[in-house]
Amino acid sequence: MGVFLYSKDYINFKKKELSIKIDSLKQKQGRAPSLTVILAGDNRASLSYVRIKDKLAKEIGMKSNIVKFDKDINEKELLIKIDEINNDDAIDGVIVQLPLPEHISVNKIIDSISPDKDVDGFHPINLGKLFRGEDALYPCTPLGIINFLKYNNFSLEGKTGVIIGRSNIVGKPLFFLLLKENMTLTIAHSKTKNLKDICKNADFIFAAVGKPLMIEQDYVKKGAIVIDVGVNAINDEKLINEVFSDYPKKIERFKKRGYVLTGDVNPNVVKTAKYLTPVPGGVGPLTVITLLENTVKTFEQKHEIS
Amino acid sequence: MGVFLYSKDYINFKKKELSIKIDSLKQKQGRAPSLTVILAGDNRASLSYVRIKDKLAKEIGMKSNIVKFDKDINEKELLIKIDEINNDDAIDGVIVQLPLPEHISVNKIIDSISPDKDVDGFHPINLGKLFRGEDALYPCTPLGIINFLKYNNFSLEGKTGVIIGRSNIVGKPLFFLLLKENMTLTIAHSKTKNLKDICKNADFIFAAVGKPLMIEQDYVKKGAIVIDVGVNAINDEKLINEVFSDYPKKIERFKKRGYVLTGDVNPNVVKTAKYLTPVPGGVGPLTVITLLENTVKTFEQKHEIS
Repeated sequence: MGVFLYSKDYINFKKKELSIKIDSLKQKQGRAPSLTVILAGDNRASLSYVRIKDKLAKEIGMKSNIVKFDKDINEKELLIKIDEINNDDAIDGVIVQLPLPEHISVNKIIDSISPDKDVDGFHPINLGKLFRGEDALYPCTPLGIINFLKYNNFSLEGKTGVIIGRSNIVGKPLFFLLLKENMTLTIAHSKTKNLKDICKNADFIFAAVGKPLMIEQDYVKKGAIVIDVGVNAINDEKLINEVFSDYPKKIERFKKRGYVLTGDVNPNVVKTAKYLTPVPGGVGPLTVITLLENTVKTFEQKHEIS
Repeated sequence: MGVFLYSKDYINFKKKELSIKIDSLKQKQGRAPSLTVILAGDNRASLSYVRIKDKLAKEIGMKSNIVKFDKDINEKELLIKIDEINNDDAIDGVIVQLPLPEHISVNKIIDSISPDKDVDGFHPINLGKLFRGEDALYPCTPLGIINFLKYNNFSLEGKTGVIIGRSNIVGKPLFFLLLKENMTLTIAHSKTKNLKDICKNADFIFAAVGKPLMIEQDYVKKGAIVIDVGVNAINDEKLINEVFSDYPKKIERFKKRGYVLTGDVNPNVVKTAKYLTPVPGGVGPLTVITLLENTVKTFEQKHEIS
């Protein structure tokens, strides 16, 4: 029987660390690091994510600014705004909240961000540097996972890991960051056969597919460490009662809200694994804190502090 | 008992295909695609590689030009030359033969090449696009391998593959290109434990480490396809007599030259595998032909032909 590995301690540690750093940077440079978040449209989830980023940034003493556009904004207006931000010395980091309205080319927008201010780490120059194993701004969720694993003193070198999912935002960058840690990695995806057998051999499993509860207890080697990157809302009452029979609070929450959040991993995996990150309370909060860490990094690089 | 998979047929096919294409491009555009190879220093192997590229380019009707510098050339002079080439509309592709003299930063030089002319596919913008799964100029050896596998009608989707070696030039880009083909991939390296067990499960093995003969017969599943990317010169007479006891020509060659070329795979692997690419005569020639293919591609993109 393993335990759930919450990220709360790590987040508190990082918040304190960043607050102290930002205080000292303010004193040295006369201003705090500054993040701008661009939001186009009125997607409710996006608005909520943007607010979470803004709130945490301010909480640790960073300057944060949300630039909101109507969902009908055209590509050119957005590109002009990004160009303005690229040339504004008082802004250190900028991200564009995804998804963008359908008529806008995501890659065109991302590629227009100055690589030095690309704190989401999505610009091809930053991905290319990650590819070559060089220092760069790395994507926040996978970098947050690596930092969290290190904070927990897990030994990674020579260990086997399976990454399930090959997105540009999680699976692929996570692959490179874990490869830098000298893990032996397998990347699995929708076309993979015998996923169960592949997982069963792994010291670490990283599930980042977006399929609720797909990793079952019999996929996991005894004592494995399982990192659940998925966040899915489910509302199937029968399924919820079955999966969360040991977690009465979860069932209460379902009765109140009509849905619960779950990862890609069945929570009963904790019985076989050594550690399983819970959803919520595991990987989720790592992304935002790492975004702020990246913003402090760009600030330090600009002022040649390290 | 499998067979050796030579690349000669494929190379002849590609040479013919590119010759015809270049002829037609010449007629349409008034000039042939043009490649410039920069060589700094007097490394004998480099000089020989550069000549092979130049000769094959000319053979298929391409314009080819070698720019030679003294080994003492400074970084600035090299950067000025590359800038000149970047701005020269009559040059479509440029590569810098590696290794460069030690006092020169390889990445600085590579990063100065215009991504549109980077026919080696080493610029971070091209690697970043490869990362995102987009069209770009891809590194020649791995792209040549993919094209060769397709030419041989091997089915890749859902198959398991092990890549041994994680270089920026072969292992990592090969990983991405095979991932695009929907293979389930494991990447192994010097810190990997139980390499034998990992290989034993794979439908495809790609050996790209540079360790002569390290993949033995008992590493390979019956019927696997083994692609040997290594090129190593060995001169241990006892070892050569042992390994090549079934290949009298190889032993003759050793007696004449004092060394023989061998891959990372023991040739006796062919007894278990379905196919094994020989060294020489397998992967080697794929690199140069793919470089020329990339040069034609840049020419076509510039003139918006496709």
